Amino acid sequence: MEKERIGKYEFLAEPFHCDFNYRLFMGHMGNHMLNAADFHATANGFGMDYLLPNRRAWVLSRLAIEMEEMPTMYTRFYVETWVESVMRFFTNRNFRVVGTDGRVFGYGRAVWALVDLDTRKPTDLLLIPGINIADRVVKDKPCLMEKASRVKMSTQAELVRTIETYYSDIDINGHVNSVKYIEHVLDLWPGSWHKDHPLHRFEVAYVAEGHQGDRISFYREQVNDLTFCVRISREDGTELSRCQLEFA
Amino acid sequence: MEKERIGKYEFLAEPFHCDFNYRLFMGHMGNHMLNAADFHATANGFGMDYLLPNRRAWVLSRLAIEMEEMPTMYTRFYVETWVESVMRFFTNRNFRVVGTDGRVFGYGRAVWALVDLDTRKPTDLLLIPGINIADRVVKDKPCLMEKASRVKMSTQAELVRTIETYYSDIDINGHVNSVKYIEHVLDLWPGSWHKDHPLHRFEVAYVAEGHQGDRISFYREQVNDLTFCVRISREDGTELSRCQLEFA
Repeated sequence: MEKERIGKYEFLAEPFHCDFNYRLFMGHMGNHMLNAADFHATANGFGMDYLLPNRRAWVLSRLAIEMEEMPTMYTRFYVETWVESVMRFFTNRNFRVVGTDGRVFGYGRAVWALVDLDTRKPTDLLLIPGINIADRVVKDKPCLMEKASRVKMSTQAELVRTIETYYSDIDINGHVNSVKYIEHVLDLWPGSWHKDHPLHRFEVAYVAEGHQGDRISFYREQVNDLTFCVRISREDGTELSRCQLEFA
Repeated sequence: MEKERIGKYEFLAEPFHCDFNYRLFMGHMGNHMLNAADFHATANGFGMDYLLPNRRAWVLSRLAIEMEEMPTMYTRFYVETWVESVMRFFTNRNFRVVGTDGRVFGYGRAVWALVDLDTRKPTDLLLIPGINIADRVVKDKPCLMEKASRVKMSTQAELVRTIETYYSDIDINGHVNSVKYIEHVLDLWPGSWHKDHPLHRFEVAYVAEGHQGDRISFYREQVNDLTFCVRISREDGTELSRCQLEFA
């Protein structure tokens, strides 16, 4: 595959991936972004195909998505992605979602760490033999959304739901699938809310890994009329992830 | 789009659509087949784009999938699809899943009715102005799997789980998503079972439509060592669908 600093991948808002407003579910948009990141990393020599035999894997630390408009059913669109910066233990990757006619649907920002699969510790991204991610950085392409920020929550968040995690929740690594977290969080609101309040921004920080069979609890706190935070914890109290949602 | 009696559409076993065995989840295979059917119907003039303005919609009545092998992560494959037969109120459509190298992964069979959205009744498929589905029938392409059969269940099936249906479960029509049923049914078995028992055949008959907010119950009955039936009912007892699963 060709090395391109900015990757551009076409996707379709498939009918079974759309909600009752005929708009792509946010979880599927997240999935398309993660796919685009994966394809682009592979095309540039630092994909899973290269890393797994070297006992390393990318671990998603944060994902933020901000949509002006969610593509409607059957819309073809592109997810563009590029590396914004590389630090010792983290790399920032950006996304732009653009229609085939050039209209911009929205943006995304993700933060990844590269984890040593034997020690489970982050490895120095600037010192990996055969990989020069710094060389792939794109500095001059704007990502017109706010950076992911620390999601602050008080101790007053209300327990809204506790669920079991099943077979369909689990990804190839045996952890709760990053995309499934998004689905479960959106499911905390009734359909009547989603009908009138399209989701403008979704942000998630992955703190620890959930496993199959974990019972996970969702604690919600309202920040203002349209902004909410959700903390997801295992039954033993371990925080797994923390989200912030802004509806429109 | 070109009118082709046999449609052929390329898909990818995306990483977040694969289970911990690195194999595509059956629900996503079902989704790819339904997409292929939709693309092919559209290319042949009887897709949703033509039907919805005419107040008609295809309603999936049965879906059966039989896999010799489920594609592994990153595998590109084709779903071929064609109309096997057209009766007054039903049409049979077949699928073949084939690798880019020609190997056959498996087959599928689906039965659809065309419903009048105003009366909610099936319409005569041979009497729709401007649509000649009978003309698109392919008689000479084999579908090497058993036909969908009536799933017989006794009154002894055991209640295994009751779940609420949420926002993510609901499709564009406001009904429980056909693909989500497959996920929920597979979730009745623990990961340890799925680890050792790849799903060979999945069959579902959709009896009535589930809606958001319905509490749905899963009743399971074992037919033999590796074959099970599952009945899905609403809390008022209405049967929504009935499945048969054969593990390997």
